[in-house]
Amino acid sequence: MDFASDNASGADPKILAALVAANGGSFPAYGADPYTARAEKMLCDLFERDCSVFFLATGTGANALALAALTPPWGAIFCHEDAHVMDDECGAPEFFSAGAKMVGLPGYKGKIAPDVLRETLAAYPRGLIKQVQPASLSVSQANECGALYSIDEIAALCEIAHAADVKVHMDGARFANALVSMGCTPAQMTWKAGVDVLSFGATKNGTLACEAVVFFDKTLAEDFDYRRKRGGHLLSKGRLLGAQMIAYLEDAHWLGLARRANESARKMADMLATIEGVRIPWTPEANELFVIMPGRMDAALKAAGARYYDWGARGLRDAEKPTADEVFVRLVTSFATRDFEIERFVEIAGASSPA
Amino acid sequence: MDFASDNASGADPKILAALVAANGGSFPAYGADPYTARAEKMLCDLFERDCSVFFLATGTGANALALAALTPPWGAIFCHEDAHVMDDECGAPEFFSAGAKMVGLPGYKGKIAPDVLRETLAAYPRGLIKQVQPASLSVSQANECGALYSIDEIAALCEIAHAADVKVHMDGARFANALVSMGCTPAQMTWKAGVDVLSFGATKNGTLACEAVVFFDKTLAEDFDYRRKRGGHLLSKGRLLGAQMIAYLEDAHWLGLARRANESARKMADMLATIEGVRIPWTPEANELFVIMPGRMDAALKAAGARYYDWGARGLRDAEKPTADEVFVRLVTSFATRDFEIERFVEIAGASSPA
Amino acid sequence: MDFASDNASGADPKILAALVAANGGSFPAYGADPYTARAEKMLCDLFERDCSVFFLATGTGANALALAALTPPWGAIFCHEDAHVMDDECGAPEFFSAGAKMVGLPGYKGKIAPDVLRETLAAYPRGLIKQVQPASLSVSQANECGALYSIDEIAALCEIAHAADVKVHMDGARFANALVSMGCTPAQMTWKAGVDVLSFGATKNGTLACEAVVFFDKTLAEDFDYRRKRGGHLLSKGRLLGAQMIAYLEDAHWLGLARRANESARKMADMLATIEGVRIPWTPEANELFVIMPGRMDAALKAAGARYYDWGARGLRDAEKPTADEVFVRLVTSFATRDFEIERFVEIAGASSPA
Amino acid sequence: MDFASDNASGADPKILAALVAANGGSFPAYGADPYTARAEKMLCDLFERDCSVFFLATGTGANALALAALTPPWGAIFCHEDAHVMDDECGAPEFFSAGAKMVGLPGYKGKIAPDVLRETLAAYPRGLIKQVQPASLSVSQANECGALYSIDEIAALCEIAHAADVKVHMDGARFANALVSMGCTPAQMTWKAGVDVLSFGATKNGTLACEAVVFFDKTLAEDFDYRRKRGGHLLSKGRLLGAQMIAYLEDAHWLGLARRANESARKMADMLATIEGVRIPWTPEANELFVIMPGRMDAALKAAGARYYDWGARGLRDAEKPTADEVFVRLVTSFATRDFEIERFVEIAGASSPA
Repeated sequence: MDFASDNASGADPKILAALVAANGGSFPAYGADPYTARAEKMLCDLFERDCSVFFLATGTGANALALAALTPPWGAIFCHEDAHVMDDECGAPEFFSAGAKMVGLPGYKGKIAPDVLRETLAAYPRGLIKQVQPASLSVSQANECGALYSIDEIAALCEIAHAADVKVHMDGARFANALVSMGCTPAQMTWKAGVDVLSFGATKNGTLACEAVVFFDKTLAEDFDYRRKRGGHLLSKGRLLGAQMIAYLEDAHWLGLARRANESARKMADMLATIEGVRIPWTPEANELFVIMPGRMDAALKAAGARYYDWGARGLRDAEKPTADEVFVRLVTSFATRDFEIERFVEIAGASSPA
Repeated sequence: MDFASDNASGADPKILAALVAANGGSFPAYGADPYTARAEKMLCDLFERDCSVFFLATGTGANALALAALTPPWGAIFCHEDAHVMDDECGAPEFFSAGAKMVGLPGYKGKIAPDVLRETLAAYPRGLIKQVQPASLSVSQANECGALYSIDEIAALCEIAHAADVKVHMDGARFANALVSMGCTPAQMTWKAGVDVLSFGATKNGTLACEAVVFFDKTLAEDFDYRRKRGGHLLSKGRLLGAQMIAYLEDAHWLGLARRANESARKMADMLATIEGVRIPWTPEANELFVIMPGRMDAALKAAGARYYDWGARGLRDAEKPTADEVFVRLVTSFATRDFEIERFVEIAGASSPA
Repeated sequence: MDFASDNASGADPKILAALVAANGGSFPAYGADPYTARAEKMLCDLFERDCSVFFLATGTGANALALAALTPPWGAIFCHEDAHVMDDECGAPEFFSAGAKMVGLPGYKGKIAPDVLRETLAAYPRGLIKQVQPASLSVSQANECGALYSIDEIAALCEIAHAADVKVHMDGARFANALVSMGCTPAQMTWKAGVDVLSFGATKNGTLACEAVVFFDKTLAEDFDYRRKRGGHLLSKGRLLGAQMIAYLEDAHWLGLARRANESARKMADMLATIEGVRIPWTPEANELFVIMPGRMDAALKAAGARYYDWGARGLRDAEKPTADEVFVRLVTSFATRDFEIERFVEIAGASSPA
Repeated sequence: MDFASDNASGADPKILAALVAANGGSFPAYGADPYTARAEKMLCDLFERDCSVFFLATGTGANALALAALTPPWGAIFCHEDAHVMDDECGAPEFFSAGAKMVGLPGYKGKIAPDVLRETLAAYPRGLIKQVQPASLSVSQANECGALYSIDEIAALCEIAHAADVKVHMDGARFANALVSMGCTPAQMTWKAGVDVLSFGATKNGTLACEAVVFFDKTLAEDFDYRRKRGGHLLSKGRLLGAQMIAYLEDAHWLGLARRANESARKMADMLATIEGVRIPWTPEANELFVIMPGRMDAALKAAGARYYDWGARGLRDAEKPTADEVFVRLVTSFATRDFEIERFVEIAGASSPA
């Protein structure tokens, strides 16, 4: 019953098998191998565009390097105030950008509203020397509250950003989960809506360690090779990343993995919703489920070995917030979540229901 | 016939199998898994000391983070002028240290002589505000010329460094190859001789991607968790690193792999030495072999598909340098080098010998 | 009628004369001159404590270097969301700290409330690796809204900060104006209340360019010499700074200058308050005066050549905010403000009053 | 008898008087004052070109900011191994460039030879990802050994640099001394020979604290305003810098000051050369004089209160080096050096001559 994070599991077996199959033979190091080349080609095909693609092993590296490529040291990076890049990467964007300023924007359910972005940008006029200069916007799809931006919402944010000469980064740590939920194409959810660079996550959805930074505007990627090398993120045995990515993308395998994770979240939500005392403020849109439950239910679940994170009251409106007797928790499902884990969780929750 | 680098191969099969075996089950992310814990314990046992151990995926990350932990932004990092940290990491130490100065020392065969270190340190007096302050020394074992420092030599450098309040880092990208050649214990080659922190490489010697930073002085490691996270080098699925390292160390597997690589280098040297026109300036001490050969021999080998790097005249004394008709090349053997590759290489070389 | 800023004037004549008097003779460069030494001594005497004192030419340099001395790259700097260090220094604290994160706290009239600080610190638990670590708190005295913290308020913030192992920096760009208004000693307003390091401003109050960073805890200053040199803030002809500071402090000259500036602000407030249509939301506590006035009064003043800044609605409660027909402006008086400027300003304002 | 440095004196009286004269009135802060504007215009006129000009208070700030504007974090800055930017600024270029690598080139008398530059650049091929990328060359005019590059030599270095897409910075801390010695125009010594950006020093030659960064290629200056502000180098009372620079340049005052300094050096050299036991390896080309003298002469001079620096054996050929009984010292003259100081120095030297 591990709902702590979608990186609690190992790799999907098919992807792991591909890694093993790629082990033989001798290839040039540092990404000059055929696995890397093929994986790059597959991503360009997937996005229906000639992109600049870079693989690395961590999402923090991908996000921070991508933002650094968009943002000078005297620039501002705009993002939601609860975004992963803001709170959960120990200042990696500040580090890789040589000291840019992160500006957190408020917003319900982890989402930035167009008006809030517009007003914030107005407070950072271009050319005012005493202030950091607007440089980049980072949006998470799906975000920290498991919510999605619609294509129109993405397009609206990108339009406002671009009008201020601000580039747009999408943190796609859960890109696959968002995509299958949206039912659109990868291109529609990114560059066709205005996104300039994407952190294309694969680790949470079935690889062991594999992320891609995808630049839709190749001119933004000109220095990225040096940034990645200098950051220690160019792996010597590049096939490790290339082979994982190929197996991940091949035959739409990644979409199947994401679908399974999303379905688990929806199923779990439906089952928990029937239990008295449980409140589900937000219908799960991807593979994260947020639940308000009685404190003794939480205690019973933890006593039974269930793993998940307390979420405080982050993202909730005042009226939605937990009472003193309740806790607000995050449950994450993944490609590896099994039905019996969900059923057991629901069973224990039901047994400790006040009803 | 790939002698370009010891990271041209994939992983050793036993290590890969262990990675596959570790795939099942659910564990806390970010290094809080039992594989990581066990691998840390094994390294402490190996070094006969309670160390602070950190795993990551790249040697550049390991070296740069380790040096940053020893060096303030206004500090000097002393190393050989041809060291990997100086020339081959695109400024990673400068990046991770927030702008420390790398000071390259000359020396035959990639080695720093005690007198040269002493004189250099004298030129960086403590407390002279206009100058960067002496902070760390990085020595490579084995080094860029495939040479080894004896234990006495390491101890002499460490003593000089410590007398100037300078900490010592060992770049052990080829630690295993050095160790089996020296015939000493890991402790003798490191902290017993005065080394403060070690980049313990495993990728070149049989893992897919796994390095460890080992602090023998634990007080130096207090900030390392933040540095690693902020640098994007904390992998979410920590078992990827832990499982590789366990299999690498278990049953002295790593020493067997290194021995094989070193024997290949020695055998290849012995065979090449019998060919007229071939000069071997330095007896191979680990798994790197440096050869001066006629230009047409080099051309014949490359035409036959042999892969290796031209080495210019780096590290050679004037009297040793190649003539206009000769080239100086580096041949690297590894755990995966097969005898028939060596034999084929020697055969082609012999066939194009001027004799 | 220049009320734009207290750095619109040149130097106070007595200070300028001292600079001229110090011009003769030959002295060691880079701060090893007797003027610097004497000025350091005078500041230690003033603060009744053996401090580490460093002079430089700009407030941005002083603030950013001081915060960098308190904050590692993975640290958080807490300050008011409208603080000068947050908004008006183009990211200097991020630059000098090698990428620390600035965390802005809300608060009425530019002040941080103890509860807000306590709650914010609770959200940055020590040792949580994914998050930047709490490191420093910066409070401005007087602050961006011209408001003062009482000694008890400073002490309360310092106590909360220290309990979380967070060091306290005071931005004293208008230290003198605050001090004479408070009627306490420099020691009471700083280290006796818990402040660890002070940016002691003198430029806005009568010098040409002279600021001091004063460390009450000398152990925090150990690296400051290198930081200042490396930042290009060690002036070669140190007497420029030392001589200004001596004349500034001698015979309590600085307090007289500040008193004059504060009295001008109070007088101007009293006179403006009698004009119909003018609202003064905050009684001036130092030398900054904030005024809500009709738009046509503002237009008339600007047409007559008055200089001052529009302040939007920053710091105001909703009920206090200007209507669509009003503007909210900041008027700064200084040691050089002359009565006739105030009288002329008030006269024009009165003439355009709706009354 | 202070020959330690040309920044041991205060300001030239005429420049100081101009500073005093500029003290009245109220002007916009942060460089938007008429003094700054006029000084900028005068420098453009002087260089016969529309330049981007920025004033600041220190040479370290000027050099480091200028180099940072030319060099990305993964770039290499080439300079002489004894250059001030290399050795005497505590790593300021590394700091302001966010970790670029300084590469020191050897060369007699502090000068870089064209061939050495060409060979060094060849070792930093464009596009080799593992290595920092060639970005900028810094030449000092006059240099650390008091030597000058001829216009042809500057042009040759610039041509080699530009052919490798490397920008050229000139450290002109002693620009005036070099210029009057060369007898050419400022334009000829800089952009007409290929220099892209100049640190135009004035502090050593008569101002209290005033340097200018002059970009001949204005596109390189686009970010400089932010860099300077963020570095804390934008002075609030800009007239301090503008007024000094105007008085410095007006009526060719600066050239007169430099001529006096150079003449003092030449005169001192001529007089010392007649003393037995004194060797002058390099004819002084600007205002620095390097002298090898017997140890007891050195002791006698120091006992009499003479101030100057020991220079080790830096820059000397083996045949020129001091014996065990000799010392090699640097004597710097300035606009403020008085004849009787020189005469007294020579007298004491002569009295302790072994002759």
